Amino acid sequence: MTTSRLAGTELAAQEIAEVETAIARIVASRSALIPEVHQHLVQAGGKRLRPTLTIVSAKALGRCDERAVLLGAMVELTHLASLMHDDIVDNSATRRGTPSVNARWSNGVAVLAADWLIATVTCELIARGEETALAVITGAVRRMCEAELTHLEQRARTWTLSEATYLQIVRDKTGALMAAACELGGLAAEAPVEQLDALRAFGFALGMAFQIQDDLLDLTGDPETLGKPVGTDIAVGQLTLPVLHALENSTDGLLDRLRAAVTVASPDELDLPRLRALVDEAGGLEYAREAAERYVNEALSHLALLPSGPPADALRSLAERALYRDA
Amino acid sequence: MTTSRLAGTELAAQEIAEVETAIARIVASRSALIPEVHQHLVQAGGKRLRPTLTIVSAKALGRCDERAVLLGAMVELTHLASLMHDDIVDNSATRRGTPSVNARWSNGVAVLAADWLIATVTCELIARGEETALAVITGAVRRMCEAELTHLEQRARTWTLSEATYLQIVRDKTGALMAAACELGGLAAEAPVEQLDALRAFGFALGMAFQIQDDLLDLTGDPETLGKPVGTDIAVGQLTLPVLHALENSTDGLLDRLRAAVTVASPDELDLPRLRALVDEAGGLEYAREAAERYVNEALSHLALLPSGPPADALRSLAERALYRDA
Repeated sequence: MTTSRLAGTELAAQEIAEVETAIARIVASRSALIPEVHQHLVQAGGKRLRPTLTIVSAKALGRCDERAVLLGAMVELTHLASLMHDDIVDNSATRRGTPSVNARWSNGVAVLAADWLIATVTCELIARGEETALAVITGAVRRMCEAELTHLEQRARTWTLSEATYLQIVRDKTGALMAAACELGGLAAEAPVEQLDALRAFGFALGMAFQIQDDLLDLTGDPETLGKPVGTDIAVGQLTLPVLHALENSTDGLLDRLRAAVTVASPDELDLPRLRALVDEAGGLEYAREAAERYVNEALSHLALLPSGPPADALRSLAERALYRDA
Repeated sequence: MTTSRLAGTELAAQEIAEVETAIARIVASRSALIPEVHQHLVQAGGKRLRPTLTIVSAKALGRCDERAVLLGAMVELTHLASLMHDDIVDNSATRRGTPSVNARWSNGVAVLAADWLIATVTCELIARGEETALAVITGAVRRMCEAELTHLEQRARTWTLSEATYLQIVRDKTGALMAAACELGGLAAEAPVEQLDALRAFGFALGMAFQIQDDLLDLTGDPETLGKPVGTDIAVGQLTLPVLHALENSTDGLLDRLRAAVTVASPDELDLPRLRALVDEAGGLEYAREAAERYVNEALSHLALLPSGPPADALRSLAERALYRDA
């Protein structure tokens, strides 16, 4: 398995191993295809960022037991289900350096295996009396779907998206599940409402920083390190913050060249180095980097409400590293 | 709207109208695409069989109030979500005589709009303290996904499916949600456990009869009346009971001709009239009709445990009509 260790979170290593065990238990099923598909996806690894947030948040509030492990596993399984469906939406052939489920099997298998996972998470949480946790996770899923549909609508409308709408999309699409992951840690620790609010706000801001860094990596990243192709957002007609800002703020001559570089007829025609240079010239890369930094600072400000100590430091380090990651 | 009235269920007409109102309330959302997609699907109509089962079951147990209406709406929304995903799995272009959501918009929209619907049903049921009903619905969804994945696996393995496996698939794929719909009516009426069991068993048997009749209509139905093309199961390589029986029970010469008719290279090459004649010659149509009849009789036997009266008569009539429907 290629699960990469998140720096600064060694204090969650034991619980993350338990999360892996819980995930393996959950994906057992009488359809032989289900464990096969989920093993493929689980073994492709990933950073396990969301359960790490749950575990470290619970530790920050002074109580991390099997409940935090269960909720961390549930939020990761929900994330894996959303990845399977996202890869259908974006028609992606690779995920974390291995074939995506839709590519390896079919759209049908990816649809049903993810549906099964969501239903299984729901059944498991109800069986354990975790209705509040279920409401937190499902509320996040609902927002993610709304945001992705809004983003799809914008694609169809060819390049009309305000920065405010874009930021709301990112908040719901990436922030909501990270906020849920942090809140679930607080729930597992039976934290008071102000600390739950702080954890949720931390997660939202972290998600914003994380997604904007993702936008930047789609323009400037290395496909090998990322384990997926770059330029895919633009190739499918999806505006991201750097491009959006460049389109909004460039002068006439540059704007024409940018539009021409962005609105290619097919993904194959996309000249990514040229596009990157144009976006950079219009200040888009710098603007997005600054925005990501602002969200990291916002995230850090919410940590002031948590008890200080190694877990709070680990959350701080997770937020700071959202900016400097290359994968 | 083209919602067709189910014969014998006039006594549920008022509540079904309330179900429609509840459905319209639920699909309001801040993404403009969501109400648009769901209106498209809701207005395509359908028989509203599942909420009718919920309402009539509640009435049969002597208590049908807003709780039964809510649960009926939730089971229908779950059914609509599963239809959107099924149409991706089967690559279907039409549904109830109108374009399917994947055909009218895209696979991505169909994936996300259905995910949103499932999440919304979950949020709504938790908010109302209906955890038991949610567990019933979600347990059914889980079984449906497992069965569909097993069915997909069988397609890939080219024509190796035992009748026992097939019947288990049908039980989970179609029976589970009908059983849930009936059980939810009993829950809303706060029925004792033996009556909940009887309602569930009735729903399972009804679902089996219903699906086998569907299999027959895929071979013998009229596309206009059905609102969808026929021969699609075989065209995608999916064995159904009449074909399965014919393949298992025909003699050498007939078997060769059947296999040749079934294993065409592309859906366009399928000679449905010829296939139908061969299946009929091997006794497949008669065998499936008898099986459907057996399940109807089984369904009726479970009604003995319910108080007699017009609602129980309506359930009986629903089961009997599963056999004689042409759409």
